[in-house]
Amino acid sequence: MNYFSSNFKLGILGGGQLGKMMLYDTRKFDIYTAVLDPSAYAPSRLACDEFSIGDLLDYQTVVDFGRNVDVLTFEIENVNVDALETLENEGVKVFPSSKTLRTIQNKATQKTFYSENGIPTADFLKFDHTTNINTALDENELNYPFVWKSARFGYDGTGVKVVKSSSDLEALPNVECIAEQLIPFKNELAVIVARNVKGELKTYPVVEMEFHPEANQVEYVICPARIPDAIAKKAESVALKTAAAFEHVGLLAVEMFQTENDDILVNEVAPRPHNSGHYSIEGSYTSQFEQQLRCILDLPLGNTESKVAGVMVNLVGAEGYTGNVVYKNIETILGMEGVTPHIYGKKQTRPFRKMGHVTIVNKDISEARRIAEEVKNSIAVISQ
Amino acid sequence: MNYFSSNFKLGILGGGQLGKMMLYDTRKFDIYTAVLDPSAYAPSRLACDEFSIGDLLDYQTVVDFGRNVDVLTFEIENVNVDALETLENEGVKVFPSSKTLRTIQNKATQKTFYSENGIPTADFLKFDHTTNINTALDENELNYPFVWKSARFGYDGTGVKVVKSSSDLEALPNVECIAEQLIPFKNELAVIVARNVKGELKTYPVVEMEFHPEANQVEYVICPARIPDAIAKKAESVALKTAAAFEHVGLLAVEMFQTENDDILVNEVAPRPHNSGHYSIEGSYTSQFEQQLRCILDLPLGNTESKVAGVMVNLVGAEGYTGNVVYKNIETILGMEGVTPHIYGKKQTRPFRKMGHVTIVNKDISEARRIAEEVKNSIAVISQ
Repeated sequence: MNYFSSNFKLGILGGGQLGKMMLYDTRKFDIYTAVLDPSAYAPSRLACDEFSIGDLLDYQTVVDFGRNVDVLTFEIENVNVDALETLENEGVKVFPSSKTLRTIQNKATQKTFYSENGIPTADFLKFDHTTNINTALDENELNYPFVWKSARFGYDGTGVKVVKSSSDLEALPNVECIAEQLIPFKNELAVIVARNVKGELKTYPVVEMEFHPEANQVEYVICPARIPDAIAKKAESVALKTAAAFEHVGLLAVEMFQTENDDILVNEVAPRPHNSGHYSIEGSYTSQFEQQLRCILDLPLGNTESKVAGVMVNLVGAEGYTGNVVYKNIETILGMEGVTPHIYGKKQTRPFRKMGHVTIVNKDISEARRIAEEVKNSIAVISQ
Repeated sequence: MNYFSSNFKLGILGGGQLGKMMLYDTRKFDIYTAVLDPSAYAPSRLACDEFSIGDLLDYQTVVDFGRNVDVLTFEIENVNVDALETLENEGVKVFPSSKTLRTIQNKATQKTFYSENGIPTADFLKFDHTTNINTALDENELNYPFVWKSARFGYDGTGVKVVKSSSDLEALPNVECIAEQLIPFKNELAVIVARNVKGELKTYPVVEMEFHPEANQVEYVICPARIPDAIAKKAESVALKTAAAFEHVGLLAVEMFQTENDDILVNEVAPRPHNSGHYSIEGSYTSQFEQQLRCILDLPLGNTESKVAGVMVNLVGAEGYTGNVVYKNIETILGMEGVTPHIYGKKQTRPFRKMGHVTIVNKDISEARRIAEEVKNSIAVISQ
């Protein structure tokens, strides 16, 4: 597969922010791209060669799009996986594979996959319907509190709930789900693994999600994680084992808990560029987006080390504001050392909507963390 | 001027590689952009919001385009400067200014500007026509060898010739020109100065053009230049003085000679992102393209320091090859440490055509330089 040949075409399912950031690097390498997205206003429309509007969950739409490209990838998991399998059988190179995506799309299947492959993860039970959890509680197979997760479309934090009582349980939708042991953890960590078609493997440094002490929300993604070397090595090794089990091609972002006992448990994975790797655009020798292209086009992997330390802050809509977005004090943060805002270009804000991210890089990680706090305290995503 | 307001529009004259690279950063900041270029295949067409086809040298075309934007800039000097002046008078913000561009477009005017502002430059004489040089030679105002430069459109090395004899002289076009003293120099240096609307000033580190020992062609741009601190300080100070004299808004790339006596002489300037600053995409805290946007939108300037050392190699078409381009051994260089190719996407190669560039970054400058040589010896821009 030589993407430099004149007729090569890369197809991307999904035209959102992740796709847009990947497309910057397709331009750098002069890769011809086609994007499919349901929205005529998808951010990627301005950076690809061919843009088509269509439903990513519709079998025939995805098959028709995929037949027209040489390599097919996705920037979002919520796509028709049967279509990917059909395309693979017809000889289209689909990376990551339909098999990997099918396993990941369903959280019960994903968790079972970890158990079967000896990958450490929190204990869990799976249920066809939420109501069946009651039987498990009655028979003492499960106790409050536990974590309920919808098996399907539990994408980006939705479909996850800590259940402390029967009234919590009754409020949940009656769908296929898992009930997972609630793990007290010291740190939430992530490692992005890159693996190309010929099997070359590299890991990015372990990053740490720092939580707001009261709000229990991720405030900062910090690279490298401020943890002992032995823990970092353990996290890397678990991440590599996970990517190997999937025989993965592409990036695999592995989110993990470091427990009170310093065990490492896999929480979940994402088979694509990931929020925990956004710092890499400014911080790393090779950004995660360029690396994803290197993986799926079977090019040699780039250096995953960092040039400088990086901290990322998500820009989300402030509470109490809905309407035409205003980035209050963005000029202030542009005046701070090593600060790069990435504005996603959504015209409307609403509470907690993801509107962008800001990366802070510095040779000294404590200084980067200090400036990140200044950024967080200065900027606000409000409405006119 | 608040570019975050909903109706703001940035206009860019020229849709070439420099514009394309700047457009990546307009996307990051969500700036609405309109581009004018004579070619329907201009690289920028895929990265801007509005793309128009038109002649950049036609007065009415440029005026019509400019009336439709809030801030107007250019990525190429060869545009209709009278149109820019009209637009300024009508209230459009044009950065850099028409006055600066008018001075720079004509090499005789540019050199006179240096003399009048006490900016060190090689001695010169100006002539309405090349044939008038004979009189100066007869009267011993000038001696062989000297450097002949066409006053107009002497862009990117064309229109420059070392004249050693009357037969050299007779071969030249009979146009407005200058004859410049031939300066033996140790190094060719460049400094990019950034100045925003409110007058905040920063310089990028001094870079060095390393020449091929035989071919007398720039082979590598190296940042930082391997010169004594005192020389670097002198070069920075000359560059700052030059930008101040122009009351420049935007980037000003100042190319200089370090003479055998360690004098610094300004050779020429470019009022835009420049080849000597391409390393900044991977090497600097703020790339020159982002910095240009910060300057002309009157945002605070970003840090111009380097994260790591950088070396840039131009990718030009190999001699003896014309036709559909092939980047021979590009996969080999992608496997080297800290190597990023930027392919400009031109489909046809010919000898010496500029097809892209490659940046090599490393914590250690000698190692970057060593890898750059490996890159140079590996890759070849040939045809099918």
